[in-house]
Amino acid sequence: MAVVVEGIRRADVAAVDGLAGFGVATVHEAQGRRGLLAPQISAIQAGAHVAGTAVTVSVPPADNWMIHVAVEQCRDGDVLVVAPTSESDAGYFGELLATACQARGVRGLVIDGGCRDVAALRRMAFPVWSRCVSATGTVKETLGDVNVPIVCAGQLVHPGDVVVADDDGVATVPRGEAALVLERCREREEREAAVRERYRAGELSLDVYGMRERLAEKGLRYVKQGPA
Amino acid sequence: MAVVVEGIRRADVAAVDGLAGFGVATVHEAQGRRGLLAPQISAIQAGAHVAGTAVTVSVPPADNWMIHVAVEQCRDGDVLVVAPTSESDAGYFGELLATACQARGVRGLVIDGGCRDVAALRRMAFPVWSRCVSATGTVKETLGDVNVPIVCAGQLVHPGDVVVADDDGVATVPRGEAALVLERCREREEREAAVRERYRAGELSLDVYGMRERLAEKGLRYVKQGPA
Amino acid sequence: MAVVVEGIRRADVAAVDGLAGFGVATVHEAQGRRGLLAPQISAIQAGAHVAGTAVTVSVPPADNWMIHVAVEQCRDGDVLVVAPTSESDAGYFGELLATACQARGVRGLVIDGGCRDVAALRRMAFPVWSRCVSATGTVKETLGDVNVPIVCAGQLVHPGDVVVADDDGVATVPRGEAALVLERCREREEREAAVRERYRAGELSLDVYGMRERLAEKGLRYVKQGPA
Amino acid sequence: MAVVVEGIRRADVAAVDGLAGFGVATVHEAQGRRGLLAPQISAIQAGAHVAGTAVTVSVPPADNWMIHVAVEQCRDGDVLVVAPTSESDAGYFGELLATACQARGVRGLVIDGGCRDVAALRRMAFPVWSRCVSATGTVKETLGDVNVPIVCAGQLVHPGDVVVADDDGVATVPRGEAALVLERCREREEREAAVRERYRAGELSLDVYGMRERLAEKGLRYVKQGPA
Amino acid sequence: MAVVVEGIRRADVAAVDGLAGFGVATVHEAQGRRGLLAPQISAIQAGAHVAGTAVTVSVPPADNWMIHVAVEQCRDGDVLVVAPTSESDAGYFGELLATACQARGVRGLVIDGGCRDVAALRRMAFPVWSRCVSATGTVKETLGDVNVPIVCAGQLVHPGDVVVADDDGVATVPRGEAALVLERCREREEREAAVRERYRAGELSLDVYGMRERLAEKGLRYVKQGPA
Amino acid sequence: MAVVVEGIRRADVAAVDGLAGFGVATVHEAQGRRGLLAPQISAIQAGAHVAGTAVTVSVPPADNWMIHVAVEQCRDGDVLVVAPTSESDAGYFGELLATACQARGVRGLVIDGGCRDVAALRRMAFPVWSRCVSATGTVKETLGDVNVPIVCAGQLVHPGDVVVADDDGVATVPRGEAALVLERCREREEREAAVRERYRAGELSLDVYGMRERLAEKGLRYVKQGPA
Repeated sequence: MAVVVEGIRRADVAAVDGLAGFGVATVHEAQGRRGLLAPQISAIQAGAHVAGTAVTVSVPPADNWMIHVAVEQCRDGDVLVVAPTSESDAGYFGELLATACQARGVRGLVIDGGCRDVAALRRMAFPVWSRCVSATGTVKETLGDVNVPIVCAGQLVHPGDVVVADDDGVATVPRGEAALVLERCREREEREAAVRERYRAGELSLDVYGMRERLAEKGLRYVKQGPA
Repeated sequence: MAVVVEGIRRADVAAVDGLAGFGVATVHEAQGRRGLLAPQISAIQAGAHVAGTAVTVSVPPADNWMIHVAVEQCRDGDVLVVAPTSESDAGYFGELLATACQARGVRGLVIDGGCRDVAALRRMAFPVWSRCVSATGTVKETLGDVNVPIVCAGQLVHPGDVVVADDDGVATVPRGEAALVLERCREREEREAAVRERYRAGELSLDVYGMRERLAEKGLRYVKQGPA
Repeated sequence: MAVVVEGIRRADVAAVDGLAGFGVATVHEAQGRRGLLAPQISAIQAGAHVAGTAVTVSVPPADNWMIHVAVEQCRDGDVLVVAPTSESDAGYFGELLATACQARGVRGLVIDGGCRDVAALRRMAFPVWSRCVSATGTVKETLGDVNVPIVCAGQLVHPGDVVVADDDGVATVPRGEAALVLERCREREEREAAVRERYRAGELSLDVYGMRERLAEKGLRYVKQGPA
Repeated sequence: MAVVVEGIRRADVAAVDGLAGFGVATVHEAQGRRGLLAPQISAIQAGAHVAGTAVTVSVPPADNWMIHVAVEQCRDGDVLVVAPTSESDAGYFGELLATACQARGVRGLVIDGGCRDVAALRRMAFPVWSRCVSATGTVKETLGDVNVPIVCAGQLVHPGDVVVADDDGVATVPRGEAALVLERCREREEREAAVRERYRAGELSLDVYGMRERLAEKGLRYVKQGPA
Repeated sequence: MAVVVEGIRRADVAAVDGLAGFGVATVHEAQGRRGLLAPQISAIQAGAHVAGTAVTVSVPPADNWMIHVAVEQCRDGDVLVVAPTSESDAGYFGELLATACQARGVRGLVIDGGCRDVAALRRMAFPVWSRCVSATGTVKETLGDVNVPIVCAGQLVHPGDVVVADDDGVATVPRGEAALVLERCREREEREAAVRERYRAGELSLDVYGMRERLAEKGLRYVKQGPA
Repeated sequence: MAVVVEGIRRADVAAVDGLAGFGVATVHEAQGRRGLLAPQISAIQAGAHVAGTAVTVSVPPADNWMIHVAVEQCRDGDVLVVAPTSESDAGYFGELLATACQARGVRGLVIDGGCRDVAALRRMAFPVWSRCVSATGTVKETLGDVNVPIVCAGQLVHPGDVVVADDDGVATVPRGEAALVLERCREREEREAAVRERYRAGELSLDVYGMRERLAEKGLRYVKQGPA
């Protein structure tokens, strides 16, 4: 039942590129705290920050054959999103596949599994978010699927969805909501800029957000420390 | 029963600043191998090294309301120490709270939970030691306590205790023992400096510490490898 | 029954130094996907890359006495490989032991346990691959063994075996196979260099490796995405 | 954006009850190795085996309010499937909620979180599959969703899907495929019954499945152990 | 600095025995959701349920010497509570120590480490709550402390505190609050008995607790599932 | 390089059957605290206790083909010991393979991976020690090795070695040392029987083993608890 879906619809490029200007935490908040991959996925390099459209890959444990198949489906602006069908710490992706990806304009890899050649990946500036670093080799024996909906690190990802990734992890935005979420990110950032200035000036969040009354209603008591 | 204790007594500033000159491993050893937080807590940035006085916060899982309350209790030289009442990988603390903390002179955060906006936290040079990086948002619904004794990463911390943190993790020193532990750190460092020179000159620890006799008593045998 | 084996045979120096030119993933592949330590072992510093001959140490949990004993058995070009007899997150190794190791020409440490003083270890450029960073002190009470076969992170290591370590983790090569594995690494690298160029030129691995036919035989189907 | 979807369509009762006659492993295999929850979810009691229709609940971490809301949506033959929006080890479900569930004919609970009162749950014979046992209390402060698609232990579950659970874990079957998967389970079981008899009679799987030729093609060699 | 504190004050026997009639979850709730050990501690046997007074033991990793010392400090009605100073999976306690404990009237063991001989422990009906089962032997080389405050599985325990343990885990009650918490447990149980009857009669918690209004205020919406 | 070694030498049957009379902890202690598998391996059933001779299997992750190959190499009194070459939570072994094993007199399975059909395995009384329970299916695509030395759960196991397994876990004894270790087990058990009687009579281990003097030498102090 292995299948490769070709000609997927992708989120609007302008919205994707706009979302690249916001952090994962902001994107997550801006869409009502949805779309976040579990924190088991972390960046192999500090400071990388990308947004792209998902080409999804469902792979058998310790078998990276379908990643090779998926590369052909990628085009400029995509991010590969890979999930094994059961947990495995193998090293599915390394410098050669990254070279092939870069040649097609792929912006990065998100994988709920291992990657390897990380020194080379850092030198190439090909950003990867993975479950672990592992040199363990994989085989090319069993089929999987490309561009079907997958669950990656606890998050449902459809092909063509937006993927935003930075030092905080990875968030996805449904293909059809990219423009709306971008708008909300901008609004949120504006609100936060104002708050940031007030904090810098020494104001407390208790006052900026008017929390004191509700804290008192809930029963918070302030007491002085007694004598030693 | 939620409470904020105000006007806590803090460890002596001179002793705290003195302890900032020693690593976590030294502080841990100098007080008889006590006071270390479990290694699940690690630094989000390399090279940060701080000492400060603890403002403690007990928070419900995935609720950061009491951190906002705690900021008001902080003053120059403090370190926020936060422990959820049950394990949670939410992102309790980010760039806005760090801005508020820096405005009050807080030297860093230690949290047995997640933090987010880590790229920004690094840019701001606000040091954080956390259980994980996680963009997951938190709510502001349930009260907790500020400046009560808490258990953070397996370690009992009282408000006003000294917190020392570096790339090795986090150690605490009871408020009343700061000067004594500082003195012992200095003695230990002197002894180690002498040992270091002897090692550099090629001496073996077996001789520097006179271990050979006790090893023999315990029954250690030296044998030559046999022929191939 | 504690024993120190002296005068161990070591892998050929030229082969060891040759293997230092290849990454852990390459060495692992070149010997038929064997010899890899489990990914729980990771580098405390980015970019370190060493090869050396193993001096093996079996230590009781939270007791580093035998590491002191092992230093005497080390000589230029060795790598210390340490495994506790049961899991422990103690900090077995720090800056002082690293100073002693550097004085004897030891190229690095691999330990299925904790290390500490990592800021100093990075400053000294003494590379360490460990299970965790932990400041927890250890005792010197119970004997273990030096230069006996040990299991470290799931991998059997004999004294004198080659140890290769980089950002991907740690691989070992049996002492007697170093030259053969080095030869295979070179062949592999040559093949990969050719593939890399073809990828850069835009060729797909599906064509470079001729995978399309076998994928079709296995039943892979390509379908177009339907209308929205 | 919190929502409760009422009047969900459920899988056909006869198919659900038929699937209760097959183990989780069989159901997983019969639908092409899909639908399995990750093994972090395990049974709190030995020997329980149920099939039912999913009422899905998305809960905030450490907040069980929406489970109370979901009970009203349950009817005879349902199984509650609960997933927190971020990982939490709180105890979301205990004896009182189980009493309410039993009164409505709910056949069991699957939760990617903790449950408590497990001695009572066992006495009541209310079967639970959970991530952990935890007495930690939860709050009722924040909304979530009932009967929306959720990801539970890495598996996408739609309301009305079939849930099969036994000592091996939990599998789901899409609502519309229940009858088809049931048919395949029956076929598989028949094939396995025949194989089982041949194994009992001493035949080897190598012969029953005719594996010897393909093993030889792949290069498997048989060698005799040499002299001691 | 190793010390054994003798003649500790213990919680009132009648209150302790009264608390044995309530589950861990009830005790935890009755004291404001405090006192629970982390769920990494679990029962090695199903159905055990004890309450006793804590004799606390701080042990070095993989060293059980101080447990032998602690047995002498135990008397009828005590529970041993053991915490290593750093994480270790060794098997600190087995059938012989359990025999010694039973001879002194000890009601059970709580240990944030491993136990062994579990088949024998079950036969003897000596209840144990531990972090893991592990046959790994321990040494008797390094001192620790008996009857000092310890942190066990994230919870501060003082000697003489009440320990309640059942299939849900372990809770502690401060020595001076035993009678008060017992009273609250009884009140809670009465309230729950009434609720239980209403649930059995088919009432919903939404009505029993009057939750509907607050849910509506928070914005919960009920929608009908659309056509297929 | 995949190989099946036939005609392996096995430990002496009488010694193996003798060792079945001793627990894993005793066997581990009797051979100098060696031979224990890591506690990640646990029994899927309570009360099973077997000893047998190891038929070892090295399998690729999520591929159980070589287990089928290994069954042919088994004979009465063997225990299958299986280790994946990299970590995987797949379900390698179920009721059908157990049926084939029982037909050949195999006494049990030890696997550093998952098993499934555990309800059936318990009914059949085929004992299994595994890393997890997992229904995830495996493939039959890639070769491995049978009856070569393997590392299973951190322990080196040679074909023909003795495997002892009970509720505490799994221990191995080198083939040539079975009789010696059996003798030591008997001696240990006799010594422990005497100690057990003294404990039952109320004697303390401090006196039975004469520990008081050495504790005093190390500096242990006894103090009375002060007034409240």
